[in-house]
Amino acid sequence: MASAVLEVSLTASGVVRGTAQVERLGDLKLGKQIGFKSVQMGGLKLAVARPLRSRRVNLSRISAVAAESSSPVFQDPLKRAVAKKAVELVKPGMIVGLGTGSTASMAIEELGKLIGAGKVKDIQAVATSYQARVLARQFGVKTVDLNDVNVIDIAFDGADEVDGQMNVIKGGGAAHTMEKVVNTMAKKTVILVDQSKVVPQLGLTFPVPVEVLPFAISPVLRSLVDLGGEPEIRSALRKDGPVITDLGNMVVDVRFPGGIKDPAELERRINMIPGVVENGLFIGIVQTVLVATKDAEETLIIDLADYVKNMQSAKEDEEKNSS
Amino acid sequence: MASAVLEVSLTASGVVRGTAQVERLGDLKLGKQIGFKSVQMGGLKLAVARPLRSRRVNLSRISAVAAESSSPVFQDPLKRAVAKKAVELVKPGMIVGLGTGSTASMAIEELGKLIGAGKVKDIQAVATSYQARVLARQFGVKTVDLNDVNVIDIAFDGADEVDGQMNVIKGGGAAHTMEKVVNTMAKKTVILVDQSKVVPQLGLTFPVPVEVLPFAISPVLRSLVDLGGEPEIRSALRKDGPVITDLGNMVVDVRFPGGIKDPAELERRINMIPGVVENGLFIGIVQTVLVATKDAEETLIIDLADYVKNMQSAKEDEEKNSS
Repeated sequence: MASAVLEVSLTASGVVRGTAQVERLGDLKLGKQIGFKSVQMGGLKLAVARPLRSRRVNLSRISAVAAESSSPVFQDPLKRAVAKKAVELVKPGMIVGLGTGSTASMAIEELGKLIGAGKVKDIQAVATSYQARVLARQFGVKTVDLNDVNVIDIAFDGADEVDGQMNVIKGGGAAHTMEKVVNTMAKKTVILVDQSKVVPQLGLTFPVPVEVLPFAISPVLRSLVDLGGEPEIRSALRKDGPVITDLGNMVVDVRFPGGIKDPAELERRINMIPGVVENGLFIGIVQTVLVATKDAEETLIIDLADYVKNMQSAKEDEEKNSS
Repeated sequence: MASAVLEVSLTASGVVRGTAQVERLGDLKLGKQIGFKSVQMGGLKLAVARPLRSRRVNLSRISAVAAESSSPVFQDPLKRAVAKKAVELVKPGMIVGLGTGSTASMAIEELGKLIGAGKVKDIQAVATSYQARVLARQFGVKTVDLNDVNVIDIAFDGADEVDGQMNVIKGGGAAHTMEKVVNTMAKKTVILVDQSKVVPQLGLTFPVPVEVLPFAISPVLRSLVDLGGEPEIRSALRKDGPVITDLGNMVVDVRFPGGIKDPAELERRINMIPGVVENGLFIGIVQTVLVATKDAEETLIIDLADYVKNMQSAKEDEEKNSS
C-alpha cells in the first residue's frame, strides 16, 4: 500500500500538526485519524519530538472522505460480508453487545435486518458508544443500559489490529473503554476484521490508544515516555484541540518503535499509570475472530486460526518453489 | 474502641441503607461515610448481601458532626501537630502537592501561615480536589494547574490506613485518583497520620475505595466480588443516591474479609478491571510517613519506621514482664 504523510496546520488555536498515512484515510471517521501530533496545546509541552514531513492538504477533502466512510451504508464488500456472517451467530432472546466503528456499524445494520425479517426475536442490545446506540435505534435494534442486564451473550466488534493469538488493538474510534467493559462482560466476543487488520505482531503500524483523564494528561504523557512509548494527543476534526471521548476524557495514541513484544505486560503497565482510564490493548478478551479475505474474485469469511494456517502454508509453498 | 452499627433509611429515592462504625463518626466528612450499602439503586442489583443490624439514627445529628469535623479549623491536636511539623519541609521556590481531607487541610492552613509570615517564598501548589483548591486560596497558597508544572517537589496528604511498609489505603474523601496522580508525580510524598491510622495489615477495618465509571458500575461490582471483595456503592449525604467524585465518577468501597494479603497484587488486579478508573491502594508511592503520637501528655511527631520500632519493643517488654 502506498503511504504518504500529510501535514495539517490549524493556526487558529495554536499550532496543531498531524501526520496520517494515506492508506488509512479510507478508514477515517470524525475523530478517528491516527498519528496526529500536538506540538503545542495550552500549557502542555510534549517531551517527544518526531520529524514531520510537510504536504499541505485540503481539509474539506478530508471531511468529505470522513463523512463518506463513517456512513453506515458505505460500501466495503469485505466488511459487509463479515458483518452478515457474524450476526448469524445471534439466537432468539440473546443480549448482544454492539461495538463501535465502520465494521461494527455494519453488524448493527445486519442484525437489524434479521430482526426486521422476523428471523431472530426478543433481542436486547447494549451499545458501546453514542454512535452505536443511534445506529441501533435507526436499524430497529432495541437497546438497554449496560447496568440493566446481568449478562451479555455475544458481543460484536471491529479492531484496528489482530495478531495470531487473538490479541487486539482497538480504540481508533476512541470507544475502547466502553468496548472493553462490554467485551469483557460478554460470554463470547466476536471480532470482525478484513484481512488487512491481521498482523504478525501488534503495534508495528498502529499505535495503542490510551484514554486519559484530562486533568492528568501531562504526567501521563511523561509516564508513557518512560514505558518506551511515543505518545501523541489525538487531535479532533470539526473541533479545535483534542478529541474528547463519550466519557469526557482525552485520547493519547502511543507508538512503540519496533512493535509490542509482550502485549499482556504492556496492557498492565499502561493501566497502572495513575490518570489512565483504559488502554486499547485487548488481551485474552476475544473468543472468536472472523476474517474476511478476498480469494481471486470470491470473498471468504474464515476463522483467524484457519487464516493464519493458510498464510503459513502459502509462505512455505513459496519458499519451497523458490528453493 | 466501641463499635455500633447504624441504619439509615432514605425512602424517597429507593431504599438506601447504611452501616457505619461509631468510632469513625469523628472522621466523617460529607461523602466520607464508610460501609454504606445500596440494597437497591435504580436498576442495580447487588450480588453481595450482608446482614444489617438496625438502629435508627437522627440524620441531622450526623450532618452536625460532619459539618464540625470537615471544617478546617476543627481542633484535633494530633492532626494539627503533624501538619505543623510537615510543612517545615517546604523550601522556597518549591512546587507543593496539596492533599485532600482533614489532616491535609490542616497542612494547607499551616503552609499558608508560613507563606503569610514570609518564612517561605515563591511557593506554587497543585491541588488534588476542589476542596484543597478552595482551602489553598482561603489560606493564601497560590495554586496552579497540574498540567502547568513539570515537577512536584513535595506532596502532603492524609491516609485512611498505613502499614509498616508505607503501603497506604486512601480514598475516604473520594479524592484518591487525583491524589494518586499528584503523589506519584511528586519527588517526595509525605503522608501525615495520627497513630490510629497505623495498622499491622491493610484492609482489616477500612475498605479499599475504587473509583468507577458510572456506565460500568454493575459489571465492575461483579468483578470485585470475583476478586474476593465485598463491594458497596458509597451513598451520598445531602444528595440522593451515590457519591459522585470531582471527576464525575462513582465510588465503591470494597471490604476484603481477613484483610489484604498482597496489597501490590490487589492494586494491580483492581486496576485491570475495565471500568475502574483508579483504586485507593497506594503501593510504593510514599517516601515518608509522619505519625503523631500521644505519650502521656506530650504530642510527638515521629517517623513511621521509629514508630513501628517503638511499638515492637513495647510489645517485647510487655511479653518479658508477663513471663
